[in-house]
Amino acid sequence: MNEKQVVIGIDLGGTKIYTAVVDEQGKILASSRKRTKAEQGPSPVIDRIVEGVEESVAAAGLPAEQIKGVGVGSPGPLDLKTGTILQTPNLGWKNVPLRDLLQKKLQLPVTVDNDGNVGVLGEFAYGAGHGAQHMIGLFIGTGIGGGVIVDGKLLHGFNENAGELGHMILDPDGPRCGCGNKGCLEAFASRLSIEREIKVAALHGVETFVLDDIKENERLRSKKLAEAYAAGDPAVKQAVNRSAEYVGYGTASLLNIFNPEVVVLGGGVVEAIGEDYVEQVRKIALQNVFKVARRNVRIVAALLKDDSAVLGAARLAWDYYNKRKI
Amino acid sequence: MNEKQVVIGIDLGGTKIYTAVVDEQGKILASSRKRTKAEQGPSPVIDRIVEGVEESVAAAGLPAEQIKGVGVGSPGPLDLKTGTILQTPNLGWKNVPLRDLLQKKLQLPVTVDNDGNVGVLGEFAYGAGHGAQHMIGLFIGTGIGGGVIVDGKLLHGFNENAGELGHMILDPDGPRCGCGNKGCLEAFASRLSIEREIKVAALHGVETFVLDDIKENERLRSKKLAEAYAAGDPAVKQAVNRSAEYVGYGTASLLNIFNPEVVVLGGGVVEAIGEDYVEQVRKIALQNVFKVARRNVRIVAALLKDDSAVLGAARLAWDYYNKRKI
Repeated sequence: MNEKQVVIGIDLGGTKIYTAVVDEQGKILASSRKRTKAEQGPSPVIDRIVEGVEESVAAAGLPAEQIKGVGVGSPGPLDLKTGTILQTPNLGWKNVPLRDLLQKKLQLPVTVDNDGNVGVLGEFAYGAGHGAQHMIGLFIGTGIGGGVIVDGKLLHGFNENAGELGHMILDPDGPRCGCGNKGCLEAFASRLSIEREIKVAALHGVETFVLDDIKENERLRSKKLAEAYAAGDPAVKQAVNRSAEYVGYGTASLLNIFNPEVVVLGGGVVEAIGEDYVEQVRKIALQNVFKVARRNVRIVAALLKDDSAVLGAARLAWDYYNKRKI
Repeated sequence: MNEKQVVIGIDLGGTKIYTAVVDEQGKILASSRKRTKAEQGPSPVIDRIVEGVEESVAAAGLPAEQIKGVGVGSPGPLDLKTGTILQTPNLGWKNVPLRDLLQKKLQLPVTVDNDGNVGVLGEFAYGAGHGAQHMIGLFIGTGIGGGVIVDGKLLHGFNENAGELGHMILDPDGPRCGCGNKGCLEAFASRLSIEREIKVAALHGVETFVLDDIKENERLRSKKLAEAYAAGDPAVKQAVNRSAEYVGYGTASLLNIFNPEVVVLGGGVVEAIGEDYVEQVRKIALQNVFKVARRNVRIVAALLKDDSAVLGAARLAWDYYNKRKI
């Protein structure tokens, strides 16, 4: 009989709920995916989360007593002390006591953190940051998310909102950012900024064959971005290289500020372009940093792809369980 | 008889050694100041440090058994684990095992950290950051130093070189910084940058009455800077306001990254200009930051002036002593 202890990791997203049964080594034993349908409101979504847990536990074939806890990565901002969702543009909810609602239904201890943080925690615990004590995670997607591990722990800050790495200012006179300010890293380097740059380049006569894609789909899909970059599309190359350049400057600042052991780069843009992107970031970052902060630092691609958040959520549960045991 | 327990704080600088007997509330009971004369090499300087300790202890009138330890703020970079000075442009030394040398001579436990960190620790423990758990310290002087307190502890990082806040990049195409890179905060906002801006402004015909001072003394003294600013000297106002503006942008980034409870601004420039400078930083920073990172944050002037490092060094000693007691 398998007496392995496990936890449940839950990645609660705007479009899907991804649930996994995870052992302490970060191995996913079984999983479940469901549509979120957040517009139906918290109560049916909580029910679907519970169904997802039951399904994945059943698929793992483990008795309930071997499940030691539940971790959830949720859109934020959250109140971490109470596990309450304060407000989420992603789900359209306000003041939902997620932790208490789930604890009651599941009869298991539940720990909650925001989705950006759990993604970083996943890479730290089981991915590209494994073994380090000081790590930066930067996720270059539609926006730019991130998080910081200091002395083996997530940096939360005073109002539990630390880690907004996409909103470092890299040029006070730079382009307007979605946050309202000017010249944030996100305004130079996110997928949205890449799309905008491609459009601007096309307007200035730079050749590109993805402009219709951006216009038709209102976004450039990862697959298309990767293909165009590999094929040498001039506007795409220009926009992607600019993104990598600014992520490089931002990384340089973060190296001087945090002196981490490893910087993990993830998210759709990094996954689409791959090592070519990481290498550009690495080069710019290491050129612009103090020698001592450069020593032995690794700047690498994330490893866990879509599993980073669910595994980070599982790690939250393990951390809570192991702390209680002591 | 006074049975009060005390520690010794030592601020080892390039020009002077400042030693103080400090109680656990951060009160200085007695102190001593000596010239460093670093060019004589480590051994006579160590002897002078020991003399300074003996003098200040004698002045405090306390028996040796009431002294619980010694903390030192030293120019870096250091190896904190062994308390060794690796290399100091300020003292011109290399690989000096400062902690062991002092421990042997003083027969007391010695703890060492770099001068920037102990200055921040002093403000955290006994100054403007007292009571907070998450604090940023930014010292705007000849250069820009700083440090970060996370969860009540100094952020050190992987190679113990975290906290180089003056070298955040605020414009990759900005002015050349002393570190070799372009557009660092320090290149926009330090006293040296202010002097350079005044010279450039004067070249462009902006009126100023401090140009001769800068040329003659090769620097602008704090008193003169303060007078010229108060008198409305156009080039000085322009340069100081630009410094405050960029410190404001840098502070905004740090608020988004760390979400601290308090940002403490110190150093010669802040002391010279005072609340006018702090208010400009506060305004720019709060305009450029997420609402949740702005909530309840305080951006304030440092309180301890020349005592910040010696009191931070004392706090190092107290932390070491209290940890051993447990």
